[in-house]
Amino acid sequence: MSVNVNSTTPARNIKLVVAYNGAGYHGWQRQADGVDTIQHLIEQSAGRLVGHPVAVNGASRTDAGVHALGQVANFFTINHSIPLRAMRRALNSLLPRDIAILSAEQVNDDFHASRCAVAKTYKYRIYVAPVRSVHLHNLVYHYWRWLDVEAMQDAARRLVGKHDFRGFTCSAEARRNTVRTIHHCEVYQSGDEIIVSITGNGFLYKMVRNIVGTLIEIGRGRWAPDRVDMILSSRNRDDAGPTAPAEGLYLVSVQYPDK
Amino acid sequence: MSVNVNSTTPARNIKLVVAYNGAGYHGWQRQADGVDTIQHLIEQSAGRLVGHPVAVNGASRTDAGVHALGQVANFFTINHSIPLRAMRRALNSLLPRDIAILSAEQVNDDFHASRCAVAKTYKYRIYVAPVRSVHLHNLVYHYWRWLDVEAMQDAARRLVGKHDFRGFTCSAEARRNTVRTIHHCEVYQSGDEIIVSITGNGFLYKMVRNIVGTLIEIGRGRWAPDRVDMILSSRNRDDAGPTAPAEGLYLVSVQYPDK
Repeated sequence: MSVNVNSTTPARNIKLVVAYNGAGYHGWQRQADGVDTIQHLIEQSAGRLVGHPVAVNGASRTDAGVHALGQVANFFTINHSIPLRAMRRALNSLLPRDIAILSAEQVNDDFHASRCAVAKTYKYRIYVAPVRSVHLHNLVYHYWRWLDVEAMQDAARRLVGKHDFRGFTCSAEARRNTVRTIHHCEVYQSGDEIIVSITGNGFLYKMVRNIVGTLIEIGRGRWAPDRVDMILSSRNRDDAGPTAPAEGLYLVSVQYPDK
Repeated sequence: MSVNVNSTTPARNIKLVVAYNGAGYHGWQRQADGVDTIQHLIEQSAGRLVGHPVAVNGASRTDAGVHALGQVANFFTINHSIPLRAMRRALNSLLPRDIAILSAEQVNDDFHASRCAVAKTYKYRIYVAPVRSVHLHNLVYHYWRWLDVEAMQDAARRLVGKHDFRGFTCSAEARRNTVRTIHHCEVYQSGDEIIVSITGNGFLYKMVRNIVGTLIEIGRGRWAPDRVDMILSSRNRDDAGPTAPAEGLYLVSVQYPDK
């Protein structure tokens, strides 16, 4: 399948909402060595569908093993022959079953999935039980011992607001602006799981997983909840907890300004 | 590892509660051709642990692809050197990660996991959404279209009580007693899923999946809820719906008389 390409053809900007099981992938972002990434597979499928190469731009570059319930991406196509209604189904038939397009819609040319995002919501699933879950392999972080949810809730509240999160990222980010605003950070029990839900205007590299790793240290009693205040003021990564494993992390949704 | 075996050694009767993801297995029951079954793998692991061959007896012979949250099994061992506390952990380290021993306890010699069972509870997960779930592959039955939960609830209530369920099993069971008592049958929405929960004193071959297949036909409007009454009185398999796929079915728990 091919289309006539010339510089005057108006392009359609297509916004995708994407879910994926990250267990089998080297993360979102296309890599030079051609390993399986989610971006690469969507670009291949979309390119095959529209008949010309496309560049798919994602809101969040999720790491290897991280999942998405509502990643947002966009791409431009000069192919006008495929109705939007057919696009979701066609892409899903081309993609492997651990990646799914939840919606495809045409948006204004100035929509850019990462640059236009004003907030993102992540959740982290901690499965707390003495025995592994046979049905949640690679979908939760299994923690064997009891965690103090109230202490974790106390700590989570201290993260809300505008802070310098340098202590919760890696040293490679040290020269960037590391101030971010957390709008919401909640910890709650749901069956055998403790869920950490967090919304902010942006997240530094591994920031959510470093926050969760710190909350787990507080939950198991190594530190008091005010450890969070200390890390926010010291801005020293060594004061925070270990990076929680990728398998428990989900990109839930990406928020954009109302038109 | 080996133990001295002689006829006067008193045996310990060990009761196991087992969870498994059935997706990778040819069901519970050991088969002559040596394919992977859950019973066979537990017998191998338990035999390796106690140092002599064991026969593991399960409460329910779940079919290929069917899951368990609380299957119950028992086996006898003449090995007294392994404390019960260590047995669960040791078995879990020997078993593949999609099978897990939730508990191991010593019970009276007369306990027999299948013969002593007085009731079993199953649930069936129907994932209702226009797009497949990337995280629930093999763990739910994906149904694309809307289902009328109230009609399914009405139909489910008609199954409760003592009835001849011949119309909900296959013809090979025709010469057996096909009367069973359903104590409880409930249909409810949970997020994107419709759950069918059913407890009874016993279930015929594929009875739960044939009931669910019938409830789905009622939910999608092909039949009215009183179709259930008709099937219970006609006792004709041809009047019931198709067998729902194995992947949505879970053995939740097995009940035994209080001592």
